[in-house]
Amino acid sequence: MPGLTLGDTVPNLELQTTQGKMKLHDYIDDSFTIIFSHPGDFTPVCTTELGAMAAYADEFAKRGVKLLGLSCDDITSHAEWIKDIEAYNNGHKVTYPIAADPNREIIKQLNMVEPDEKDPSGNQVPSRALHIVGSDNKIKLSFLYPAGTGRNMDEVVRVLDSLQKTSKHKVATPANWKPGDPVVISPSVSNEEAKKLFPQGYKTVDLPSKKDYLRFTNV
Amino acid sequence: MPGLTLGDTVPNLELQTTQGKMKLHDYIDDSFTIIFSHPGDFTPVCTTELGAMAAYADEFAKRGVKLLGLSCDDITSHAEWIKDIEAYNNGHKVTYPIAADPNREIIKQLNMVEPDEKDPSGNQVPSRALHIVGSDNKIKLSFLYPAGTGRNMDEVVRVLDSLQKTSKHKVATPANWKPGDPVVISPSVSNEEAKKLFPQGYKTVDLPSKKDYLRFTNV
Repeated sequence: MPGLTLGDTVPNLELQTTQGKMKLHDYIDDSFTIIFSHPGDFTPVCTTELGAMAAYADEFAKRGVKLLGLSCDDITSHAEWIKDIEAYNNGHKVTYPIAADPNREIIKQLNMVEPDEKDPSGNQVPSRALHIVGSDNKIKLSFLYPAGTGRNMDEVVRVLDSLQKTSKHKVATPANWKPGDPVVISPSVSNEEAKKLFPQGYKTVDLPSKKDYLRFTNV
Repeated sequence: MPGLTLGDTVPNLELQTTQGKMKLHDYIDDSFTIIFSHPGDFTPVCTTELGAMAAYADEFAKRGVKLLGLSCDDITSHAEWIKDIEAYNNGHKVTYPIAADPNREIIKQLNMVEPDEKDPSGNQVPSRALHIVGSDNKIKLSFLYPAGTGRNMDEVVRVLDSLQKTSKHKVATPANWKPGDPVVISPSVSNEEAKKLFPQGYKTVDLPSKKDYLRFTNV
């Protein structure tokens, strides 16, 4: 029952990765960073996922977002497995580092332990956890998926766009929002302030309560 | 830094809801149940989210899945606010219960605390957390989104379909999987066993490692 959750600072771990040793906070630096774990190298869903991450690399780069993979396999295994990932995914290169946690210490610290599955030796494996970490090293958003359910990279990109938009403007993104859709003005913004902050205008929804909290605009 | 995560049993909380008192485990009973928190009644993103949950009610009912909302507002507030939700969402009725946690005890126990925002009185509010709980009362999958980012109900339905499929067959769903797409056969299944379990056949991807772990089938 590890405790790391929204708002917590990720520990400044010393990592062994396919791109050398690094300290986690140095890697994050001033970027949004996606830390994502996978249960094991040379397993099916993981190959499709890390390949999808490689295929979406341009989308993440455009947004200034770094990627960091992680499992309990060692660096030699990762390096061999990358050949499979790239071959399966039409040659999309794995340009991001994949960290190794053979002692299963990091996955506990990062709340990335799969509860139901073990490796063939009976050791713990990581879940399909994905944390989006800000430049302040704090967790902004997490997906905790089990070994059987591959993640959806379109949803990862969607929430990144939301996090980046809401960090720049006093707005939030409604249910099922996609880039280009209207956003809502934060409740902390008065109507007076909203007129100044959003000179492009905004539209208040008329509700039975007659409270004017549902205000849409475009930013 | 609350600890509840994947694989943990949700506590058998005594809940006050818009549909009366209930014990959480009695409500879950033998169904997949979605427990989802929202920062506050009469706020913009929440109105779109709980409305989306109402609009998707048929999708959840078809899958035998129960819904349970939760925030720190009281029952009277919830009841008034539901009028706004239904009006905004073209009359889709809120047929699921919304629990009240005015003492902010439940959100801590369920790992649903928003780290960055407070209500106008300076009290803690819930994050946009969403746990999918199985009939064994254990957490199968979690989304932990901050107050500014509304959830994506299509992703919720997608992962439910994955969880239900992988609980019935020895398969997993690859990255970006959608219902109807091929699934992968679990690594624990030998090729011999796979021939028996999947008489419809399966296709093994040829990889540089020559390990035959990436096997697609349809179930």
